[in-house]
Amino acid sequence: MQGLYLVTDRPLCGQKSLEDVVLQAVKGGAAYVQLREKDISTRIFVEEARRIKQLLTPYKVPLIINDRIDVVQASGADGVHVGQDDMPYAVARSLLGDKAIIGLSVETWDDVEESQKLGVSYIGVSPVFATPTKTDTKGVWGLAGLAKIKSFSRHPLVAIGGINESNAREVVAAGADCLAVVSAICASSEPEAAARKLKSIIDTALLMRR
Amino acid sequence: MQGLYLVTDRPLCGQKSLEDVVLQAVKGGAAYVQLREKDISTRIFVEEARRIKQLLTPYKVPLIINDRIDVVQASGADGVHVGQDDMPYAVARSLLGDKAIIGLSVETWDDVEESQKLGVSYIGVSPVFATPTKTDTKGVWGLAGLAKIKSFSRHPLVAIGGINESNAREVVAAGADCLAVVSAICASSEPEAAARKLKSIIDTALLMRR
Repeated sequence: MQGLYLVTDRPLCGQKSLEDVVLQAVKGGAAYVQLREKDISTRIFVEEARRIKQLLTPYKVPLIINDRIDVVQASGADGVHVGQDDMPYAVARSLLGDKAIIGLSVETWDDVEESQKLGVSYIGVSPVFATPTKTDTKGVWGLAGLAKIKSFSRHPLVAIGGINESNAREVVAAGADCLAVVSAICASSEPEAAARKLKSIIDTALLMRR
Repeated sequence: MQGLYLVTDRPLCGQKSLEDVVLQAVKGGAAYVQLREKDISTRIFVEEARRIKQLLTPYKVPLIINDRIDVVQASGADGVHVGQDDMPYAVARSLLGDKAIIGLSVETWDDVEESQKLGVSYIGVSPVFATPTKTDTKGVWGLAGLAKIKSFSRHPLVAIGGINESNAREVVAAGADCLAVVSAICASSEPEAAARKLKSIIDTALLMRR
């Protein structure tokens, strides 16, 4: 996994529809989309996931659902992202099968070590920086923490938390293979341009790393 | 399906543990248990469902999970109860298979007619009476509404909403095959005795109906 990874946040989209933000992000170069929802009914979540899956299919961009295996199964999404309080990884893998993308957040060094034993598709290094959109975390990894994980882990690293144009380069330089952003795209007045800019920074930084 | 059906509500259990309330209800004669949770993490929900499934197994009492197909799959529960805002029935059936118990709440006459086409295990007539534990409903069926559904529907009827010792007899007389209760057991200081009393009322009323 490499590139730009959009994590959705409907409230942050403001007047823009979530579908429009996703479409613009993908046109701008987002390679992965994670649909993250809280406080909506299962039915609405499933309907939204199906719409977004349909929208992503022509772009061959995988749809990843936050936490909810049932929504993955009901929508034809490509995988799930689970946190440490979500469905246990082993259960998610047994329910979704070998081909599914299954990402796991790591919030402590114990989580990182534990993830070495698992066949996760990636680990989500969460959060790299402090962020207002996710406050239930155990600490902040920082660039040094990210670099330490990179030197240890056998998994692709998706960095998340407070990432934007101003720090994207150094996050890739520190070892992130993918940058996940929420506000930097959802709250932007021009999501496509924001995605394009981020993708260009990531691509350049990945080249520099080789 | 016939008899007493416990729907759990952790806050209503107060000082008592949910596991203890479930165990007492089953010892008192509850024939079905539905685990209903809001606002807990998937991981905690799964762990709780597994504990309760284990606890029910020796009693051969099926465990039904509210809404969450993923929790059913992860816990080995026997089925799911879905409301009109939850996972669509057809999706639930295709994910859980023919043997699963799948109940569907009906809140309007359209819901009742629609349910005739579906292979649901039962319909939940919700709510029969007004109730403080569920406020997002479209109206109250009353005994007359329940009787009308009984004369029309091909499915077993599980009545829910405001049912207690004082009205249980007439709810069965009006056509309910199962009585689902929340407060009448969870908020009772003696859940086993409360369940036993309700079961006895239901059994007698079912005999009278023949």
